[in-house]
Amino acid sequence: MSEASELDVTASPVPDIPVRDEDEHLNREFIAAVEAAIEANDQDGLRHLAADLHEADTGDLLETLDPEDRASFIRLLGEDFDYTALTEIDEAVRLQVLEDLPTEVIAEGLGELDSDDAVYILEDLDEDDQAAILEELPYADRAQLQKALDYPEESAGRRMQTEFIAVAPFWTIGQTIDYMREARDLPDSFYEIYVVDPTFKLLGSVHLDKILRTKRDEKVTSIMEETRQAVLATEDQEEVARRFERYNLVSSAVVDENDRLVGVLTVDDIVDVIQEEAEEDLRALAGVGDEEISDNVMTIARSRLTWLVVNLGTAVLASVVIALFEDTIEAMVALAVLMPIVASMGGNAGTQTMTVAVRGIATQELGARNLLRVLNREILVSVFNGVALAILIGVTAWMWFGSPGLGVVIGGAIVINLLFAGLSGLLIPIALDKMNVDPAIASSVFVTTVTDVVGFFAFLGIAALWFGLPF
Amino acid sequence: MSEASELDVTASPVPDIPVRDEDEHLNREFIAAVEAAIEANDQDGLRHLAADLHEADTGDLLETLDPEDRASFIRLLGEDFDYTALTEIDEAVRLQVLEDLPTEVIAEGLGELDSDDAVYILEDLDEDDQAAILEELPYADRAQLQKALDYPEESAGRRMQTEFIAVAPFWTIGQTIDYMREARDLPDSFYEIYVVDPTFKLLGSVHLDKILRTKRDEKVTSIMEETRQAVLATEDQEEVARRFERYNLVSSAVVDENDRLVGVLTVDDIVDVIQEEAEEDLRALAGVGDEEISDNVMTIARSRLTWLVVNLGTAVLASVVIALFEDTIEAMVALAVLMPIVASMGGNAGTQTMTVAVRGIATQELGARNLLRVLNREILVSVFNGVALAILIGVTAWMWFGSPGLGVVIGGAIVINLLFAGLSGLLIPIALDKMNVDPAIASSVFVTTVTDVVGFFAFLGIAALWFGLPF
Repeated sequence: MSEASELDVTASPVPDIPVRDEDEHLNREFIAAVEAAIEANDQDGLRHLAADLHEADTGDLLETLDPEDRASFIRLLGEDFDYTALTEIDEAVRLQVLEDLPTEVIAEGLGELDSDDAVYILEDLDEDDQAAILEELPYADRAQLQKALDYPEESAGRRMQTEFIAVAPFWTIGQTIDYMREARDLPDSFYEIYVVDPTFKLLGSVHLDKILRTKRDEKVTSIMEETRQAVLATEDQEEVARRFERYNLVSSAVVDENDRLVGVLTVDDIVDVIQEEAEEDLRALAGVGDEEISDNVMTIARSRLTWLVVNLGTAVLASVVIALFEDTIEAMVALAVLMPIVASMGGNAGTQTMTVAVRGIATQELGARNLLRVLNREILVSVFNGVALAILIGVTAWMWFGSPGLGVVIGGAIVINLLFAGLSGLLIPIALDKMNVDPAIASSVFVTTVTDVVGFFAFLGIAALWFGLPF
Repeated sequence: MSEASELDVTASPVPDIPVRDEDEHLNREFIAAVEAAIEANDQDGLRHLAADLHEADTGDLLETLDPEDRASFIRLLGEDFDYTALTEIDEAVRLQVLEDLPTEVIAEGLGELDSDDAVYILEDLDEDDQAAILEELPYADRAQLQKALDYPEESAGRRMQTEFIAVAPFWTIGQTIDYMREARDLPDSFYEIYVVDPTFKLLGSVHLDKILRTKRDEKVTSIMEETRQAVLATEDQEEVARRFERYNLVSSAVVDENDRLVGVLTVDDIVDVIQEEAEEDLRALAGVGDEEISDNVMTIARSRLTWLVVNLGTAVLASVVIALFEDTIEAMVALAVLMPIVASMGGNAGTQTMTVAVRGIATQELGARNLLRVLNREILVSVFNGVALAILIGVTAWMWFGSPGLGVVIGGAIVINLLFAGLSGLLIPIALDKMNVDPAIASSVFVTTVTDVVGFFAFLGIAALWFGLPF
C-alpha cells in the first residue's frame, strides 16, 4: 500500500508548489491545493503535497485549515502524518484536532514519538482522555509516559525525553561508536551521550564532537565533562531555561533525587520556554493572560475582565482624590482640563521604570548587589526628566491659560509625580518579588495607583494652596 | 611560569567556595574572596578561585566587581582569562573594560576566540579602536574578522562563526571521522558538518549523531540532509531566529549570494536573539529603548524623555477635548471627578488588545488569513466587557452621587470607549505593520490617544446632552 502510493506519487500530475511565500507565510496556492485534495478525498495528491513537510510546516498548515478539515487531513495522510506536528500548534487547535480523532489512531501516532513530544500532546487533555489513550499503548511506552506525567506541570521531568544513550565509564570511544552503530531505538537526534555508574548514577557527559575527534582506543572518561550541576526532574522549567541560557547549553542530563539519570532536555524545548518567559512578562504587565489567537470569545473576555475590574479599583481611588478637591475645581475649572496630563505623565514614567525593573528581576540583572546604584540612578533620571517636562508643560499651561501661576503649579506637580513614579516603578516590583508575588502580574496596578493618586493630589493640592482656593 | 603557578595552586591555602548561592546568584563570600585577591595582587589565589570558571560565571563576576577592579582581574588571571566572558556582559561594562586594557592584550585574547565571539566583542567599539586591535592580529584572523564586520549589523554574517567542517560528497564516513581526529583548528564545538562541491557550494548537512550511527564505508551523501533553504549571510538575525525556532534548529549553514558556504550559526547565539526580540516588544510598548541596567543616567534620561514628550502630545490633546466642555464641568463638577475612570478603563482595554496584536504580528500568528475572525472576536469581547464594566461603574456612580442619570451617562461612555479601544488596539498595530513601522514602538501612543479622546469626548458629550448642560 505504501509502495503503491509512492508509485502513484511519481506519476501524480500535481505540480510542485512552494510551501512558503517570500514573507515566510504559508503560500496561499499551496494551502488551496491541500484544501482541494482534502475536498476531493485525494489521498495520493495530499501525500504528494504534504507527506514530506517539516513538522513545523505541517503544524502551521493544520492551524490554517478549517477546523472540520483538520482530522480529514490527518486521516488521509495516514502513516505519513508525523504527530510531532501537533506540538507545533496552539493548544486550542490541538484539543480540537484530538477531539475529532479516534483514540486508537492518536495512540498509534503518539507511539512513534519521542517521549517529550508525546507528553506535550497528552498533558493538556483531561484525565479521562489521557487514560483512554495511554491504555492503547504498549506497556513500556505507557509506563514511561505515565511517569513523566506524574512530574509537576512545567517541570523538567515533563519536558525531558527519556530516550538517551548512557555508557559505562570503562568503555572506549571505539566501543561507544560501535554500540551506537548497532543500537536500535535511539533518540531521533542527540548531541551528547552520558556516562553512568552501575546504579545509573550520572558521572558526566561527552559531546558528540569530542567523540568524533578522539581516537578509538581512548576511554570515554578521558574526554568526559564531569557533571557540575545536573538538572533535577522536579525543577521548574524557567529555572532550567535560565541555566541553558546562561551556560549556552544545547542539551542537559536530567536526574532524579538520587542523582540517577532519568532523561535529557534539549535546547529546542527550552527555546520555547525562554520565549514564553519573556512574553509572559509582557502579557502580565498588560493584563492579558496566556490567551492564544485561537481562543474563543468568552475565555478571553473573562480573563481580561478580571484585570479591568482590578484596575477599576485604581481608577475609583483616583476619583476619590479628585472628589476631595471638588470645590477647588469648581472655583477654577482649568484644573480639570490640565489634571489628566499630570497623572498620565506619571503613569508613563512609572511604566518605563517598572518595565526595566520587572525584566531586570526576571533575568537576575537587578538584585541586592546593584539595587542602591539603580535606585540612585532612577532618582536622578526622574528629577532630570521631571524638571525637563515641568518646564515644557509649565510654559504650555501658562501660554494656554495666560496664568504663569498655573504653569508653576503644574510644573511642581509634574516634578513630584515623576519622582514618585520612578521610586514606585523600581521599589514596588522589588517588594513584590521579595514577597514571592510575580512582579510582572501585580506591579502595574500598584504603580498606576501611586502615580494617579500622587498626580491628582499634588496638582490639585498645590493649586489650592497657591491660589488660596477652597478645598 | 604557568607551571610554577600550578604548583602554587595545589599548595594554596584558599578554601573552595561555591560560586553561586541557592538562588543562583553569585555567592557573596566568593565575590569577597575574589576582591581580596585582587586587592592583595595575589595572582595564584585569584587563579585558584577564578581560572576554571565557566565564561558565564566569569562574566557575571566581572559585572559585579568595581569598575576599577575589572581590568586588574583580567590582568592578574593572564592567560587563564577566557575572553569569551566578555560576550556575556552588558555592553556598557564591556566598553569600560576594553577601555582599561592595552590594545595588544585585547588582540591576544581575541585571537583565541571563535570568530563569532571576537566579532561580538569588536562590533560595539568605535572604528579607531577596532582598527587598532585588528592591526595587532595575524593576517588570516584579521581578514576573517574584517569580512564579518563588513556584513550589516544584526545580520547572520555578524553572528556566524567562520570555523566549520566541510567535506566533499564522495567522502566516506570513515574518511570524515579520520579527518576530524587529525584536524587542528576545529571549532570549539559543533553539531553538524557540511558537504560542499569543489566550488564550496553548499550541498547539504550531516548531523553528528547520524555520523556516529553509520558504518565507516558508507558515503556521507547517503545520510546527508539536502539544504532546503540556507541562511543568507546578509539576512536579518530576527528572521534567522524565527527559522531556528520554527524548525527547532541547533545549527545552520550560512551561505553567500552564490550559495557558497561561508559560516555556521549555532543556537546559543540565536537564543539571545529570540529573547531580545520578545523583550524588545515589551520595552518598545513601555517606551524604554534598549537601555541596560549598567547604562548611565544621561543616556537613560534622554532616551526615556523622548517617549514622555511624544506622550505629552497625547495628554495635551486629551486636555483640549476636556477644554471643549469647560462650561459643562463648571455646571456639574462630578463630571471632573468621574472622567478619568472612562479614559483609564479604555486605556487598559486598548493595551490588552494591542499587546496581543503586537505579539501576534511578531510571531506571525496574526495575519491576513485570520484578521477578520480576530476582529470579530475583539468586537464581541469589547462589547461583553464594556457592558459588564458599564453596569459596575454605572451603579457605583449612581450610588456615589445619588444620580441614576450619571450612572447611565458613564455606562454609555464606557461601552463606547471599550469598543474603540478594542478596534484601535487591533487595527492600529496592523496598519502600522502594513506601513512598515514597527507596531511595538508606535502603537501605544496612537491607541492611548484614541482611548483618551474618545473617552473624554463620549463621557462629557453624553453628559451635556443628557442633562442639557452648556458646552
